[in-house]
Amino acid sequence: MTPNENLKQYTLKETGHYKVHGRTDETQPALPLFFNGSGIEVNVTGSELWIDLDVDFETHEPWIWTALNDAFMSRQMLPSGACSLCLFRGMSPDSVKNVKFFRELQAMSEDNACRLLVRGFRSDGTFLPVRDRRFKLEFIGDSITSGEGTYGAEDDTDWLSMYMGTSRNYARMVSDALDAEYRLISQGGWGVLCGWDNDPRHNLPSRYEKICGLAAGEMNEKLGAGKPYDFRSWIPDAIIVNLGTNDASAFEQPEWTDPVTGQSFKQHKEPDGSCRPEDLARFKQAVIDFLSMLRRNNPTSHIVWTYGMLGYDLTFAITDAMNSYQKAAGDLNIAFLQLPNTTELTVGSHAHPGEKSHARAAQVIIEYLRSILA
Amino acid sequence: MTPNENLKQYTLKETGHYKVHGRTDETQPALPLFFNGSGIEVNVTGSELWIDLDVDFETHEPWIWTALNDAFMSRQMLPSGACSLCLFRGMSPDSVKNVKFFRELQAMSEDNACRLLVRGFRSDGTFLPVRDRRFKLEFIGDSITSGEGTYGAEDDTDWLSMYMGTSRNYARMVSDALDAEYRLISQGGWGVLCGWDNDPRHNLPSRYEKICGLAAGEMNEKLGAGKPYDFRSWIPDAIIVNLGTNDASAFEQPEWTDPVTGQSFKQHKEPDGSCRPEDLARFKQAVIDFLSMLRRNNPTSHIVWTYGMLGYDLTFAITDAMNSYQKAAGDLNIAFLQLPNTTELTVGSHAHPGEKSHARAAQVIIEYLRSILA
Amino acid sequence: MTPNENLKQYTLKETGHYKVHGRTDETQPALPLFFNGSGIEVNVTGSELWIDLDVDFETHEPWIWTALNDAFMSRQMLPSGACSLCLFRGMSPDSVKNVKFFRELQAMSEDNACRLLVRGFRSDGTFLPVRDRRFKLEFIGDSITSGEGTYGAEDDTDWLSMYMGTSRNYARMVSDALDAEYRLISQGGWGVLCGWDNDPRHNLPSRYEKICGLAAGEMNEKLGAGKPYDFRSWIPDAIIVNLGTNDASAFEQPEWTDPVTGQSFKQHKEPDGSCRPEDLARFKQAVIDFLSMLRRNNPTSHIVWTYGMLGYDLTFAITDAMNSYQKAAGDLNIAFLQLPNTTELTVGSHAHPGEKSHARAAQVIIEYLRSILA
Amino acid sequence: MTPNENLKQYTLKETGHYKVHGRTDETQPALPLFFNGSGIEVNVTGSELWIDLDVDFETHEPWIWTALNDAFMSRQMLPSGACSLCLFRGMSPDSVKNVKFFRELQAMSEDNACRLLVRGFRSDGTFLPVRDRRFKLEFIGDSITSGEGTYGAEDDTDWLSMYMGTSRNYARMVSDALDAEYRLISQGGWGVLCGWDNDPRHNLPSRYEKICGLAAGEMNEKLGAGKPYDFRSWIPDAIIVNLGTNDASAFEQPEWTDPVTGQSFKQHKEPDGSCRPEDLARFKQAVIDFLSMLRRNNPTSHIVWTYGMLGYDLTFAITDAMNSYQKAAGDLNIAFLQLPNTTELTVGSHAHPGEKSHARAAQVIIEYLRSILA
Repeated sequence: MTPNENLKQYTLKETGHYKVHGRTDETQPALPLFFNGSGIEVNVTGSELWIDLDVDFETHEPWIWTALNDAFMSRQMLPSGACSLCLFRGMSPDSVKNVKFFRELQAMSEDNACRLLVRGFRSDGTFLPVRDRRFKLEFIGDSITSGEGTYGAEDDTDWLSMYMGTSRNYARMVSDALDAEYRLISQGGWGVLCGWDNDPRHNLPSRYEKICGLAAGEMNEKLGAGKPYDFRSWIPDAIIVNLGTNDASAFEQPEWTDPVTGQSFKQHKEPDGSCRPEDLARFKQAVIDFLSMLRRNNPTSHIVWTYGMLGYDLTFAITDAMNSYQKAAGDLNIAFLQLPNTTELTVGSHAHPGEKSHARAAQVIIEYLRSILA
Repeated sequence: MTPNENLKQYTLKETGHYKVHGRTDETQPALPLFFNGSGIEVNVTGSELWIDLDVDFETHEPWIWTALNDAFMSRQMLPSGACSLCLFRGMSPDSVKNVKFFRELQAMSEDNACRLLVRGFRSDGTFLPVRDRRFKLEFIGDSITSGEGTYGAEDDTDWLSMYMGTSRNYARMVSDALDAEYRLISQGGWGVLCGWDNDPRHNLPSRYEKICGLAAGEMNEKLGAGKPYDFRSWIPDAIIVNLGTNDASAFEQPEWTDPVTGQSFKQHKEPDGSCRPEDLARFKQAVIDFLSMLRRNNPTSHIVWTYGMLGYDLTFAITDAMNSYQKAAGDLNIAFLQLPNTTELTVGSHAHPGEKSHARAAQVIIEYLRSILA
Repeated sequence: MTPNENLKQYTLKETGHYKVHGRTDETQPALPLFFNGSGIEVNVTGSELWIDLDVDFETHEPWIWTALNDAFMSRQMLPSGACSLCLFRGMSPDSVKNVKFFRELQAMSEDNACRLLVRGFRSDGTFLPVRDRRFKLEFIGDSITSGEGTYGAEDDTDWLSMYMGTSRNYARMVSDALDAEYRLISQGGWGVLCGWDNDPRHNLPSRYEKICGLAAGEMNEKLGAGKPYDFRSWIPDAIIVNLGTNDASAFEQPEWTDPVTGQSFKQHKEPDGSCRPEDLARFKQAVIDFLSMLRRNNPTSHIVWTYGMLGYDLTFAITDAMNSYQKAAGDLNIAFLQLPNTTELTVGSHAHPGEKSHARAAQVIIEYLRSILA
Repeated sequence: MTPNENLKQYTLKETGHYKVHGRTDETQPALPLFFNGSGIEVNVTGSELWIDLDVDFETHEPWIWTALNDAFMSRQMLPSGACSLCLFRGMSPDSVKNVKFFRELQAMSEDNACRLLVRGFRSDGTFLPVRDRRFKLEFIGDSITSGEGTYGAEDDTDWLSMYMGTSRNYARMVSDALDAEYRLISQGGWGVLCGWDNDPRHNLPSRYEKICGLAAGEMNEKLGAGKPYDFRSWIPDAIIVNLGTNDASAFEQPEWTDPVTGQSFKQHKEPDGSCRPEDLARFKQAVIDFLSMLRRNNPTSHIVWTYGMLGYDLTFAITDAMNSYQKAAGDLNIAFLQLPNTTELTVGSHAHPGEKSHARAAQVIIEYLRSILA
């Protein structure tokens, strides 16, 4: 290979112009990409562009995808260590290229060593301002929103980084269709009240108000994950919640016992198949409390609770809680939106929604948000 | 034309074998087809088949459609008077043909003279038993369920018989996909509590328990329309309610005044755009009461309330009422299902859902019912 | 029914404004609709419109379809005798309605009594000029172009009027997409050289230069069918030939013997499965001769020979003939275009292309003609 | 990262089981992947798999894509030098994983330094036999078959490695649908007689009989590219030629002059827009000669010449040549198949067919080959 002698190295700040996607701590020397859909976007001239990264993990390696001029170009696993990826080379130097670099992998609550840091770029071009998109959207969810199942063969059942993604995710489809920036806060297996296995610690609301409450451990602490998130820094036009699927599972799963304290938790079903009223009540209260938290932090955002891509079981419980919240808070700026359930024709790997299911759900959300945000 | 000398005239009874679709009074000498989707189905050999009809109307003429071996064959306006329509001719005489003859036009509450009676058939073949379909489905709705807008150009805005239909209706699509028989009870402009124009008489529940409470006047009385409907005669596996769209309109429309009594009715909005609580309360009560009525008459049927093909405005009100009903009645056999809203790509005539919108809604219902009825 | 006292009867001439579709003899007192796709189009105000018809047939009854403001509205069998069909009623009287009335059934070479004549209209409105479409297209073909199989269930195998049509025909789809008027000359079972059964009389070229060379007998003679067609009266922008499918069948079928003269005809295959060279040669000559005839009569029209909806067997023979013709005539204004073959997913009744196959073929032709006619 | 201590290094031979895709020289110590669609496939147990590569290039970097259990997993640019890519990690060790690793980039006639060699694998699992697919397909073409334009934004016009691919290529789609292995021999800008710019050296036939006649220079010579290809080693069921598009361009482009010899070449148009007969004749002769070469080397393979994804200009010339060849050779095992032209809705980057256009073309070929190979 003939090396390009004209490449110049830049820290992010030195580029002068770039756009950060996803919640992060911009005061860090290298920019942490905590969430799936977190990333960095530049407009740059020149023939060649490299991104300098710092990567580590214990078990779950990060994957990334890139887009050039809004077209999908690459998706790959990242090796551990410092590395540089070439984002393009050999291009006509004068034209301005829009390059987006996105993390595919969700924030990894189960791997405290998992990190993906952007140290800077190398290019022979000039960095130019990146335009703001028309809207800002925040998506909050579970494995569906982590894109689990959007990659992988239908029979694949391992729980793996490589099956997750934002590149084939309804959140990305919705945002592209509406010309919106997006931020995702999601975690596979988690719920509003508890996780799919009745683990009551696995609820999204408890992590929502930090920059990345899902990333634990000392390293993440240093990277700013645990700092309070500044909700005024990026005000979403709409917040799309997609939670409840794991709360529904919990009613079917055995009791969870805390390995440390020995305390246990369980959502019960009655003999007639219905959910035990007091257990349903605490789920509803969790929904109400989360809506209050969302509204407190996002006074002007439209909040739409979406549900159904993996079953409609808790439709009544969610709408009952939303009705209660609405009556108490007088909050007219919320909505409930069912999404088409996943079928054998639209399923992906690991019994999760595949790309076709994401596309169907995205279409419903796109049409809904068009009527709200226009 | 060479006349077929072998045709023999049959009253329905004389055929020995036929299947009636839709609620009707089978004791009548000529079979009344009161509703859209009402019809008659036969299996017959022979080369030729005619149906003998008796038709009248004051303003709104009936339309019909036919299917041969489950394939759409014809759709046409019916003239007034006694008439005979040829359903097929020139066919191989030995094969058994399945023929379905369906009314396209809804029961016409605004035209007491409107009637469509089947007097019998003429054929040179033999009538054979008609198989039962796998499921029985009852659809209750408004203009959407009357198929208004499924025919006609997008710019057509007249309110006309010819724009209505079952042949391109989600109810038919769902039933065909699930191998189900269907009965429709629908009326354009009507709601659960009141009509689109605040007319409180225009609520479906008040007509639900008669054979065809929508057909008024002396003639319809004689035809049996006002008789109580025998709910044990045809027990639906599922009841699909699609109401609320006109109740939502009422909040936007001026007060309605009874031309006779001078009494008036109006659903109000508050200055902040929300629905006035007491008006919303009576809408919810109407939903609750209708669910109770449906359950009382159909103890075993799954009831799914669908909503959204023309907007999601009353989602919270409907689900709140359904939650209240469910808690009070302990009825676990109900569900709420949103249908994709109609967009400019799926709209039909008269600003109503077009065939594409019906197809999208049908798909959601088909997938839902498959998971329930399997 | 309340009769409309304001209806006024018009002969076609008395309307002052109407558009004739399809080749016909406009000097006749009642307008003959000879071909599938033949019809009459009016722009009219008023609340109501009827068409007055005269119909007869021995065996094969005509079917028709209507469109209101370019939207499909009805399709029905016509009874024998004088009849009037209501095309709309109850409409807002001031708006201008575009109404099209089309014959579904091909010209019936096997039923000399088959006729469909338009005697006039009855309306309470005023007739207004009908705009010319952007292009004029002539389609020449066999059962595919007669739309055989576009109606009827997949298992239906009778050869019947009701399975044919223009309403779901690729010719109509192409014409609508390009804003074109169309004329069809087609006959099921016929070819360029001979029919599917080796009947050498069943070739389209022999009938092409008359108004309707396919309609025989004394009655049709009186209706003008046998008059020479005036090619200057309607100059097509493009001629779409879709022939060869039955010529290919002839190689597989037994010899045909003329019942009158005893003379026989047969296209042969060699033992190795190839077509016998001399038989292929006369097929090619028929293609060459037909191209010469088409060009002689249509000096400026683009001629595209389409092929493949029921197999690609004669692709080489057709292109070889077209190459020979082109070299000899120096005619650059011709093209060959393959159409997607019919599959089990796109087949209709009677093993013919169904609506989906027609739609796929239409898309290819639409895209091709857009590049030629733009 | 916790390193996997159980990884064991294998040369290809040491694995015992693997399948090579694409023409190559298997006697080389490291396996050269010369063509787009060349690759290596393994079935392997274990939790982790790495592939060891050797990469170099002067200007045009190779891209690759991988599939796990037949599902697309990654696509990425390769850096220059020795490198190892992890193909999966963290999987359940006992299950057998099918892994395919494919070159995206065409053989690069313009970059003699471009190479992609597979040195071996590292894994903690066991390698198992790889099944043969049902059919073998050889695709021969130009930039369309090199997948140029299947990646990249519609406005991207650079000529770049990253816009080419097999992962979204019709050849891959066809092969997957038919359960076939495929070999591609293609080069952007090349034709049957000459290149798009009239360069007569840029014709595929002149390179067809070597392992990879497109890869020049000393290094490629050492890698075996210039060795004669053993046609008995892999006998295709069908050969799909997709050439002629650049030969058509040559008629529109200026004369090409050999920079070394000063000799020039040009395909001319006549003033009336037609192709000059003697120039057309040498194009046809090139088609005839190539068909003879294909048949000589592949006596039993069905040969289908496909054409049209970027215009139908040479349809008559190609079919005329095919007819001449068929008559002279008596070869009945050939066919001509038009593919749908690319439209503004299906175009990709660099004015080439996008993924949607490839999908449409693939569908036509799939249906055709199903009827031939079944």
